[in-house]
Amino acid sequence: MNIVDVTMVRVYLAEGRKDLMTVEKWLQEKSNIHGYTVFRGIEGVGRDGHRHTASFIDLSSELPIVIEFFGLPEQVDVVLEHLQKLVRADRIVSWPAKSGI
Amino acid sequence: MNIVDVTMVRVYLAEGRKDLMTVEKWLQEKSNIHGYTVFRGIEGVGRDGHRHTASFIDLSSELPIVIEFFGLPEQVDVVLEHLQKLVRADRIVSWPAKSGI
Amino acid sequence: MNIVDVTMVRVYLAEGRKDLMTVEKWLQEKSNIHGYTVFRGIEGVGRDGHRHTASFIDLSSELPIVIEFFGLPEQVDVVLEHLQKLVRADRIVSWPAKSGI
Repeated sequence: MNIVDVTMVRVYLAEGRKDLMTVEKWLQEKSNIHGYTVFRGIEGVGRDGHRHTASFIDLSSELPIVIEFFGLPEQVDVVLEHLQKLVRADRIVSWPAKSGI
Repeated sequence: MNIVDVTMVRVYLAEGRKDLMTVEKWLQEKSNIHGYTVFRGIEGVGRDGHRHTASFIDLSSELPIVIEFFGLPEQVDVVLEHLQKLVRADRIVSWPAKSGI
Repeated sequence: MNIVDVTMVRVYLAEGRKDLMTVEKWLQEKSNIHGYTVFRGIEGVGRDGHRHTASFIDLSSELPIVIEFFGLPEQVDVVLEHLQKLVRADRIVSWPAKSGI
């Protein structure tokens, strides 16, 4: 087995916002990554100090969404370059990791 | 665009525990971080080997909660120093990453 | 307090698949890690381009599951070596981090 360097990426978005659709569409149709996983947070506190929480009353509130993927560093670099045009750059975090191929 | 060094932090807590409220209150009111995201796990197996699982019967069980945030390393250092007084240190994990500002 | 080097691990699986049970059973009964957390994604797009999404109609679809844990690097190395026999290696990602003990 080969353990190789990869880059992990997490992109912080929110439910119901237009950029979420744009990012997913681009990742699926145009990017070179093999796949990604989407997580929904139960609460997000943003820059504005505004709190978005899941509750039984308002299930459709703007809950935080994280899109996560990883890939070979040179492939992910290409993805990040384009992603930064779709999403505010401070919503994208990446770091080096290891995975098997 | 500027890509800068940041520190990512994940804090592992559990639903319904007092320290969760304390940590969130402190992050919102006193810390210098811009925001954070809260995730709920569907199962946690702890040090005690005790298993906490989401089920239809007991939705209020002590499910794992993760609070995640990132920020400039020197800002996060200050946050971590205080967090370690609120939460057992082995529940806090941090690592270097990159983000745009 | 001691802040030490740890290795973070995320293992990408899917609900309802046999390897999820196998991995959890092994982690609980045989591995040297103190605990782990399980997260369910709301959507996964895999290698095949196939999309698995949570919906009100089909709650039992093959949603992505992530098992996360961390530990001392030398302990995690042992865990990873065995995990790679249970799970395809490209479903396991790990990276260095810091935590308190």
